[in-house]
Amino acid sequence: MGGVTGGTSRVSVRKLSGDADFSRAELDVLAVEEPLEVRLAWRERDAMTERAIAVTMRTPGHDAELALGFLTTEGLVTRREDVIGCEASGNVARVELAPGVKVELGGVERSFYVTSSCGVCGKASIDAVRVRRVHAPAPYLRVSASVVKGMPGRLRGAQAVFEATGGLHAAALFDAEGALDAAREDVGRHNAVDKLVGWALREGRLPLGDRVLFLSGRVSFELVQKAAMAGVPVVAAVGAPSSLAVELAREAGMTLLGFVRDGRFNVYTGAERVAGMHHGG
Amino acid sequence: MGGVTGGTSRVSVRKLSGDADFSRAELDVLAVEEPLEVRLAWRERDAMTERAIAVTMRTPGHDAELALGFLTTEGLVTRREDVIGCEASGNVARVELAPGVKVELGGVERSFYVTSSCGVCGKASIDAVRVRRVHAPAPYLRVSASVVKGMPGRLRGAQAVFEATGGLHAAALFDAEGALDAAREDVGRHNAVDKLVGWALREGRLPLGDRVLFLSGRVSFELVQKAAMAGVPVVAAVGAPSSLAVELAREAGMTLLGFVRDGRFNVYTGAERVAGMHHGG
Repeated sequence: MGGVTGGTSRVSVRKLSGDADFSRAELDVLAVEEPLEVRLAWRERDAMTERAIAVTMRTPGHDAELALGFLTTEGLVTRREDVIGCEASGNVARVELAPGVKVELGGVERSFYVTSSCGVCGKASIDAVRVRRVHAPAPYLRVSASVVKGMPGRLRGAQAVFEATGGLHAAALFDAEGALDAAREDVGRHNAVDKLVGWALREGRLPLGDRVLFLSGRVSFELVQKAAMAGVPVVAAVGAPSSLAVELAREAGMTLLGFVRDGRFNVYTGAERVAGMHHGG
Repeated sequence: MGGVTGGTSRVSVRKLSGDADFSRAELDVLAVEEPLEVRLAWRERDAMTERAIAVTMRTPGHDAELALGFLTTEGLVTRREDVIGCEASGNVARVELAPGVKVELGGVERSFYVTSSCGVCGKASIDAVRVRRVHAPAPYLRVSASVVKGMPGRLRGAQAVFEATGGLHAAALFDAEGALDAAREDVGRHNAVDKLVGWALREGRLPLGDRVLFLSGRVSFELVQKAAMAGVPVVAAVGAPSSLAVELAREAGMTLLGFVRDGRFNVYTGAERVAGMHHGG
């Protein structure tokens, strides 16, 4: 292994191309994937309790935001005041809760919510795949079709690591005029979203009732659920949504846009939030 | 929602394109995502015990294989004889173990292995992110560069749902001459791999010491780990590997190939298994 800089790492590879099967040695840039342990600390009676509550494979960077966002989309934290400290060091992030914040780890540990690539969640059951708490999505947000069409280009402009490695997912928050608030990248798209939500918590911006969450890839159930937990009314993505992502968006009263690329997009749910849309055909 | 056929589902969407912001109603085909509960049954003393051990968000189809593959890559099952029954119905798959098979759920439930998009695995810790058991990868397998270059085209020929929805990951097993054994698709790439491994278990083909696992997307730590658990010595992918995927492949003595597309690829580890590779540059 070569060095690690931010979210990338260099390795030597042999590259093969052409018909001659000749290879040459080169340095290649990889997206870094490492485990982050999220630890939660809180005061119980008179003593401090501290527990490792999760490990996620993530791209290092914005680790405190990732931990805060994870706690938010898991429903343990809802506003900045719930947290009195958050430190990230190496592969550990430790969040200390304010006195009086109720700690219900049952939800996290019994996996009331099951991630799309998680098969190892102990006592999970099918009934448990549901949204636990949803901010009523803001009815007033309107975003124009031309603003939506401009999002892929604006996100690309803000992305750094993806271009270098081809290995990262990105997520961004936009306002209704298409101004970018923040963008985050990660090997896991759920982590990119959690990093954004953690950023918003720190900034005191939750719930995100007047924002659009834009995703560089596909949209699973899990990602719509995270958006719902953060109060985001509109999710737009470069890729395709899954069937359950569409169902959840409809149930939760959210707007879901897919295949946002090349000047086009599809409206799966919540067309009333897309302004300037003339209904033909 | 419209109807569901196999791995796809139809929904009505509004499509926007062009500058005029005119939209038209159309039917769109989505990749289906639904939860599958994996239940394990075994005889303990004189009574049958049955437990739900996992829920995974998957694309319906090949559910019995998915359950069997999951148990294999989790280390609970190693050969066909370990299983005396497997039924899948609706969103539940039930696997019955043969008498005498040791059931160690600790590993699954305590999440010794943490998936790349799983943040909710109870007692997980960073130390636990490791391979629990690896077949020594077969040293004798050799695959030629031209066979590797032909894999993307052969997989595309075998893929059905992806073309329709753009929403699925695919995984395939090839032999050293480039003949395709089987291909599977899923919204979760880990599930596509588990379905293949479950197929191999049923066919009595484990460990897969003379096969190449080919993936349509990126390569995370988790996918290399699943390949290792199935004894696959060569993993090749259309997308980029993560840093930890490369580290694990190196530690486990496996060959890892990435960016297999457009007549090129990169060799990250285990170049000795790539035949006909002339070292230049």
